[in-house]
Amino acid sequence: MPSNNDLMRKIVALAKRRGFVFPGSEIYGGLAGMWDYGPLGTELKNIIKREWRKRFVLARDDMFLVESAVLMNRKVWEVSGHVKSFVDPMMDCKKCKARFRADHIDPKKGCPECGAHDFTAARPFNMMFKTHAGPVEDSAAEAYLRPETAQGMFVNFKNILDTMHPELPFGIAQIGKAFRNEITPGNFIFRTREFEQMEIEYFIRPGEWESWFEYWLGEMRAWSASLGLNPAKVHEREVPDAERAHYSKRTVDIDYDFPFDRSELYGIAYRTDFDLSSHAQASGVDLSYFDEAAKARFIPHVIEPTFGVDRTVLALLTEHYAEEEERVVLKLPPRLAPVKVAVFPLLANKEKLLAKAREIYNALKPELAAGLGALVSWDDRGNIGKRYYSQDEIGTPWCVTVDFETLEDDTVTVRDRDTTKQERIAVSDLVAYFTEKLKS
Amino acid sequence: MPSNNDLMRKIVALAKRRGFVFPGSEIYGGLAGMWDYGPLGTELKNIIKREWRKRFVLARDDMFLVESAVLMNRKVWEVSGHVKSFVDPMMDCKKCKARFRADHIDPKKGCPECGAHDFTAARPFNMMFKTHAGPVEDSAAEAYLRPETAQGMFVNFKNILDTMHPELPFGIAQIGKAFRNEITPGNFIFRTREFEQMEIEYFIRPGEWESWFEYWLGEMRAWSASLGLNPAKVHEREVPDAERAHYSKRTVDIDYDFPFDRSELYGIAYRTDFDLSSHAQASGVDLSYFDEAAKARFIPHVIEPTFGVDRTVLALLTEHYAEEEERVVLKLPPRLAPVKVAVFPLLANKEKLLAKAREIYNALKPELAAGLGALVSWDDRGNIGKRYYSQDEIGTPWCVTVDFETLEDDTVTVRDRDTTKQERIAVSDLVAYFTEKLKS
Repeated sequence: MPSNNDLMRKIVALAKRRGFVFPGSEIYGGLAGMWDYGPLGTELKNIIKREWRKRFVLARDDMFLVESAVLMNRKVWEVSGHVKSFVDPMMDCKKCKARFRADHIDPKKGCPECGAHDFTAARPFNMMFKTHAGPVEDSAAEAYLRPETAQGMFVNFKNILDTMHPELPFGIAQIGKAFRNEITPGNFIFRTREFEQMEIEYFIRPGEWESWFEYWLGEMRAWSASLGLNPAKVHEREVPDAERAHYSKRTVDIDYDFPFDRSELYGIAYRTDFDLSSHAQASGVDLSYFDEAAKARFIPHVIEPTFGVDRTVLALLTEHYAEEEERVVLKLPPRLAPVKVAVFPLLANKEKLLAKAREIYNALKPELAAGLGALVSWDDRGNIGKRYYSQDEIGTPWCVTVDFETLEDDTVTVRDRDTTKQERIAVSDLVAYFTEKLKS
Repeated sequence: MPSNNDLMRKIVALAKRRGFVFPGSEIYGGLAGMWDYGPLGTELKNIIKREWRKRFVLARDDMFLVESAVLMNRKVWEVSGHVKSFVDPMMDCKKCKARFRADHIDPKKGCPECGAHDFTAARPFNMMFKTHAGPVEDSAAEAYLRPETAQGMFVNFKNILDTMHPELPFGIAQIGKAFRNEITPGNFIFRTREFEQMEIEYFIRPGEWESWFEYWLGEMRAWSASLGLNPAKVHEREVPDAERAHYSKRTVDIDYDFPFDRSELYGIAYRTDFDLSSHAQASGVDLSYFDEAAKARFIPHVIEPTFGVDRTVLALLTEHYAEEEERVVLKLPPRLAPVKVAVFPLLANKEKLLAKAREIYNALKPELAAGLGALVSWDDRGNIGKRYYSQDEIGTPWCVTVDFETLEDDTVTVRDRDTTKQERIAVSDLVAYFTEKLKS
């Protein structure tokens, strides 16, 4: 395997070369901290979100998925504490005027841009993107792009109570974009200014927070395992008092051994009743819950498991990237592979083979799309060896080759990505074969 | 059926009461033009997006789905013409200072806010939300929230050529948020400041634009029909020269008879090579395509079919809302219903019935989730009549009732939303029964 620096460089190159991730606005030199997802990256993200929704929403009885607006009333962020506290320490190089996160550089080593040793004192920089909603640019119209999806769940807590009539414990979940004006974005899609979260606010009775915290930590472990992440590379880190966000009484970061560093992949926080109580007080709206069993009214407490979509993509690429003798292979669990099956004619210049391969592809593609939501792709470029290489690199679990035997007996070879072994399968069995494989 | 004004009011009320759509930031008095989707609305949106992706991406060979960043380099918007031309005419009431879209009010009738007849002259107002990316608030760091997803496809045109090697004609598709600082948002989720688009840029040989325009118009008609929209309420309107966007040589609006007005649901535009040519020239990056067959190099032209997700939701609610003798019913095509099946015990206070109903629900829910991605819900509140009423109102196609007979012979009643007829079905046949129903 390549060294860590080398691995990061290779992953970024593969992501770009094969259509997973492109630099945002690339033809204009990019925009720092912004990335665009190509066809394979978009599919991979969609698969991650679909799996998450299946596990944490559809398969459960106690979870409500919402989609709140990115732009919210600024009072939300005043009351949540973000206007005051969602800051990073920033300092400038007095010589070249470059700006840095004070906790990310060592002043003794000097400015990373120009080498000078002359910095301003560190001062707080608010990371929320500011804009104006409505046609008047005054402070009344100021709005922020949400830096977390969480507040969208808190301000809709009463709407969920009133429309869904849930009993405690229950959760509100959301998948959506969030924006943070990071002083120094970096490490590819790890620290970006625009990213996607999958977040749960799980409402509980105050006395039960410790057991629910453990429960959700367990659920997060099970999720990481379902991605095929090696448990030896996943680390739970108790976040000490001084590092914790202003709303949290306990936070555990779930770190992963990324190529550049051991860094936060997911997180779980006990937010107490801080958010609901603050919003109830500031808005004058009653955000309490009436417990029928205990005949008691109180403001629920919250456990918050948070999952980053983009960091999941990066962890998957890191974990499953492998170099073998004559190939690079993304050993993604087949369930997560963006392309599930590729279909080739053995030779592209033989009319009959080409027609037969097209026929099989045209039948297979819509069937796997409808039944499994799975993407099937076609390749007739280069020779068969090059096509295998190309499909291995993007993690396609199975390649179907149509050869001269197919013309006689309607069978094809199915080649397995991981073992590289080939099996002879009847064309009429292909859908059942892949459906079965994808179940395991 | 209710009158049109009445219908709009009823749809908004139902949407709020049943968890489809809530006013954004509601506990703080809202934020104009922003809406939050509750659990049923989120599911409906997701179903719309899933159906769209299946039809226009998965089932096709020539479409590449991408997901580009909301925040793009500002040069993108200078070159696309949006900084200069993405404007609406705005005028102020001199008396009360309220601002209006000049083309939306009749000055002769006076200010809608205060009644005065004293307006400023109309002047252009740019509808892009502006923000600053990076820690320095100067004009170099100015960025816009994208007002359309389209430019994300144009700036990635070369990336798609280089990674996917497509041949003309082919399309780049995107589903994602866009933001427009409308002067006067209104009509519920019709004109909002934050909304979601499903957009295709379909690249073609210049000489073929007329036939591809017709082809995509046909595809859009088929899509509208698949939503169950009454063709008599869907109107194609040729947009005259003076109204067309600066980039378009032909535009057809697909209007729908919304309760408030006949208004734009979808649109299709022939954007010529305006965007690619402008970006190629401004960025210095070659955005041409080499046509192997014709041995010619040229910049492709573009047909752009655009679909609004939120307007699709509103059209579906409008079309399928029905008042019948003793019920309100959302007659959504079952494929599109947010909850596919509801399970009840006939009586909630009979221990054995309750346990049996739970058992059936617990088995059915994960099976339909895994196989069909379908949501199954539970209801044991009130009596059976109220539960039917409640499920009809949100469009649940089938209700499963567990009664005393179930305890004896493992059959249940399945009640059909539209006919209100009940069938006796074996519990072991339920999955097959719903799978079959959902196919048609």
